[in-house]
Amino acid sequence: MTEDRTISIIVVGASAAGLRAAARARRRLPDAKILVIDQGSFISYAGCGMPYFVSGDIQSVDKLRTTPYGLIRDVAFFREAKGLEVVTGTKVERIDRDARKVYCKSMRTGEASVYSYDKLVLATGARPIVPPGVLIDNKRITTFRSLEDAISLRKSLETGKIEKVGIIGGGLIGCELAEAFSALWGAKVVLIDAAPNILPGVLDPEMALAVEAYLKSEKVEIHTNCPFEDITGSAEAVTIKTAQTNFEVDCAVIAVGVRPNSELAAGCGLAIGKTGGVVVDDKMTTSDPNIFAAGDCVEVRHLISGKSINLPLGSLANRQGRIIGSNLGGGDERFGPVVGSTAVKLFDMNIAATGLMETSARDAGFNVGCVWGTFTDRADYYPEAQNIHFKLVFDKQSGRLLGLQGYGKGEVVKRVDVFSALLKNEGKLEDLMDMEFAYAPPYAPAVDPLYALACIARNAVLEEIQPLAPDSWYDERVIIDMRRPDELKSAPLPEKDILNIPFEEIRRKWEEIPKDKPLICICSKGVRSAESLRFLKEKGFSDIVYLGGGCFMKPAI
Amino acid sequence: MTEDRTISIIVVGASAAGLRAAARARRRLPDAKILVIDQGSFISYAGCGMPYFVSGDIQSVDKLRTTPYGLIRDVAFFREAKGLEVVTGTKVERIDRDARKVYCKSMRTGEASVYSYDKLVLATGARPIVPPGVLIDNKRITTFRSLEDAISLRKSLETGKIEKVGIIGGGLIGCELAEAFSALWGAKVVLIDAAPNILPGVLDPEMALAVEAYLKSEKVEIHTNCPFEDITGSAEAVTIKTAQTNFEVDCAVIAVGVRPNSELAAGCGLAIGKTGGVVVDDKMTTSDPNIFAAGDCVEVRHLISGKSINLPLGSLANRQGRIIGSNLGGGDERFGPVVGSTAVKLFDMNIAATGLMETSARDAGFNVGCVWGTFTDRADYYPEAQNIHFKLVFDKQSGRLLGLQGYGKGEVVKRVDVFSALLKNEGKLEDLMDMEFAYAPPYAPAVDPLYALACIARNAVLEEIQPLAPDSWYDERVIIDMRRPDELKSAPLPEKDILNIPFEEIRRKWEEIPKDKPLICICSKGVRSAESLRFLKEKGFSDIVYLGGGCFMKPAI
Repeated sequence: MTEDRTISIIVVGASAAGLRAAARARRRLPDAKILVIDQGSFISYAGCGMPYFVSGDIQSVDKLRTTPYGLIRDVAFFREAKGLEVVTGTKVERIDRDARKVYCKSMRTGEASVYSYDKLVLATGARPIVPPGVLIDNKRITTFRSLEDAISLRKSLETGKIEKVGIIGGGLIGCELAEAFSALWGAKVVLIDAAPNILPGVLDPEMALAVEAYLKSEKVEIHTNCPFEDITGSAEAVTIKTAQTNFEVDCAVIAVGVRPNSELAAGCGLAIGKTGGVVVDDKMTTSDPNIFAAGDCVEVRHLISGKSINLPLGSLANRQGRIIGSNLGGGDERFGPVVGSTAVKLFDMNIAATGLMETSARDAGFNVGCVWGTFTDRADYYPEAQNIHFKLVFDKQSGRLLGLQGYGKGEVVKRVDVFSALLKNEGKLEDLMDMEFAYAPPYAPAVDPLYALACIARNAVLEEIQPLAPDSWYDERVIIDMRRPDELKSAPLPEKDILNIPFEEIRRKWEEIPKDKPLICICSKGVRSAESLRFLKEKGFSDIVYLGGGCFMKPAI
Repeated sequence: MTEDRTISIIVVGASAAGLRAAARARRRLPDAKILVIDQGSFISYAGCGMPYFVSGDIQSVDKLRTTPYGLIRDVAFFREAKGLEVVTGTKVERIDRDARKVYCKSMRTGEASVYSYDKLVLATGARPIVPPGVLIDNKRITTFRSLEDAISLRKSLETGKIEKVGIIGGGLIGCELAEAFSALWGAKVVLIDAAPNILPGVLDPEMALAVEAYLKSEKVEIHTNCPFEDITGSAEAVTIKTAQTNFEVDCAVIAVGVRPNSELAAGCGLAIGKTGGVVVDDKMTTSDPNIFAAGDCVEVRHLISGKSINLPLGSLANRQGRIIGSNLGGGDERFGPVVGSTAVKLFDMNIAATGLMETSARDAGFNVGCVWGTFTDRADYYPEAQNIHFKLVFDKQSGRLLGLQGYGKGEVVKRVDVFSALLKNEGKLEDLMDMEFAYAPPYAPAVDPLYALACIARNAVLEEIQPLAPDSWYDERVIIDMRRPDELKSAPLPEKDILNIPFEEIRRKWEEIPKDKPLICICSKGVRSAESLRFLKEKGFSDIVYLGGGCFMKPAI
């Protein structure tokens, strides 16, 4: 056992949260003794970038741990440039809160060491969930969390050893890996998830279905409603057993989510939340005033639902780390509740969401309204304009904004970010309508999609211009297809009983519509049918709705 | 003179504001008589798209007046699809407010007509400013406002008649046209402006200088501080006379701004503001409760300065038109004060701004602080990451956000839009730090540029980590260049008295720095020098600043 050195601040974990806390504390407390301890060998690498290394978009793994000015972020860099001492390959095994000591063991030599602290920062991160009963004892079966995981997968791809991959879990990482394996390397990918749709924590089903259809068009094989049962590997192959069928693959990645590494905190009696994350207040202090925690190991509060959640994002980890560093240096900085903004790029499709999904909004007790819309991301005459599709979740009583989900090949993320800013201020539909986008044809239509969505929502609430969800069944309704004849070929409706009355003829031909039957108006984006709905209601048609987002959002059957 | 017909609602002007008001009123008041009168022949075209038609990015001019579903927005379209009567080629010459009548004249036949109204909407737009004494009586000299202007310019380009173009005015339109003429058609462009920099209403000088340098690299010839004096044209050429020199060109476009068409309103005694725009309240009502006005002909209030301004943007015109239509139909909708978000794409550079510029913020009485920053728009390891550059204007006392300006080949506009959302809520630096961006490596770095800018601002105010503006002179200061040796070649500093101490060596070598001289730290983006500033201040260096935004924002000399 080495001698007991007095260290003012000890940080456990040398990734985003921990190093940011340490670096910030160093700036505020130039004379403090600061020690960062990490059990791994690589530190300060961009875990979020690993799928792009696996895919080959990033050539060298060092890119993920290089500063913008070309230095590798290793122990020497932090010592010389940041004035921080970092010890790697060392596991903190136990915390003695009364004595303010941490007890460590070298992962290489097994040697024990102990350090005293005045203040302790826990940034222990999270680890992949492994389904019960699964033993990861075969090289062909892996999780995806460490740089070592990424290096090993990339090597197998490069040497052509992987022709078919099974990915268990259709969340963000699972989907990113599906692209990584198939886009550049051409591996065949089977993606399975027990949920009814992929990206279950990000998108509501009707939105996720469209992303699924797109991934399928990119040759990803997707099996949803497909609970994983077991996995077995041999030297040559892997068998994934599910409730549906068995899949034979060359290798399998388990990506069913992560779990906070809160055992160290729990072991010394710190409060742990129901989510399994370390409980912290808005100054990022744990239940012990001398111990702070940040990053993937903590739980945070959702601004809208009020619930505690885990939100393992590098962006939050950085912000939380800085707050701890400032507060260690005598500051009074706070981490507010989150709205949970998320984004993922899959092939050429941009997907993003913020706030509550429809079900979580209902669970939180809101009087939930939902509307959908298809738009161009720029002026529709601008050559690079692309369609984007959104779902807006709001409270019908108050008009409060609750959530936004979007996908498409155009600029989706910008709108989600703007919406996130409004959510933070408890914005309402009228704030969306008051929003001022920097407008020029290459960036937005004159009427921005977010503004148009707010109009759609208000029309639904105030004037009962009611959309049906894009994945609705409406067999009992007579369909009025309001598209022009030349539009019908590109996306024909499979249903029968269709009355085709183009939008521009509705004022002449409305009397052809049967008065005594339930109706649904359909067009390409939902705009023309919503407008006609108002006209037809004036003419006395009462049981009439339209297809939200139009044919362009209708999932393929 | 035709007979007097009773019309409930008359709208003067069939562009964004007027048609939107009419269409919305039609939906709310299905039985109203609504007449839209316009003096031109083309209606409802996207004026903002005209530069892209001139450039050839858009092939047919009809693209600018086609619905997304392929119908030309002409008189027949508005009649059939929208239930609106539109009369073109008819000028409203006079309004009799007591009698509630408008007196019109046909532009084609000279025939007079008169219509009675219950409610009148003025959407008369704006027209190009022509410098005093200039007669536009030559085909080679033109302004750029109507579709006819665009068609004629495009024709001249296509037939190769234009080899060299003079553009008078370096505002948004002037700069867009500079690209339009040179990018595809290869015309030589001379851009002149009396102001010290281009985009004078959008960017502060040090920001505009960088855009100028970029335009020059794209072969646009720029003359600022170059007041226009006169222009003369012959059948073969045009001479532009300026205080500097004379320019001989094949044709000239005058783009020195627009002026509200408020003469009709003024003629009937409606209140006109100092800006020349029609005065309206937040329901878009003029000083006559039966007359509304919207679009480029009105003045609006700036949320931060409280001043009245003209802001001729299609996005605002649409919003204002809808508000009038709703209010005509019994609604109670309001148009709030504006923050003035603007964007323009020039070649591959994105430029955007919102809120107040530095001088306008000072004029408005704020205790103005400014900071600059260079960032990557995505994770720096992501293959398509690009540099973007920002200037943040804020109030030093309260931390209130006042304005943001940005340029670069990466995603600038998203950040300006998010900032605009925060401005609308009178956001502060801490709101910027609390902002939650949808983070994934293809969309943002884990620490978003806006968050980093807020940190830079707080460090400047709270810790006196003081940046100099990128275009500052600092001859009297010793320069500490903190870049690594291999970075110096790409952007060498022309100055003498440079001490090169790379960032990662500063903790070892700081004693080499002269203690008794004023100092400036410089690096590529400002990050390393700001961080070193803090360290050096601890070591007792007091007269020390750093170059905001780093070498990457320093305008070429």
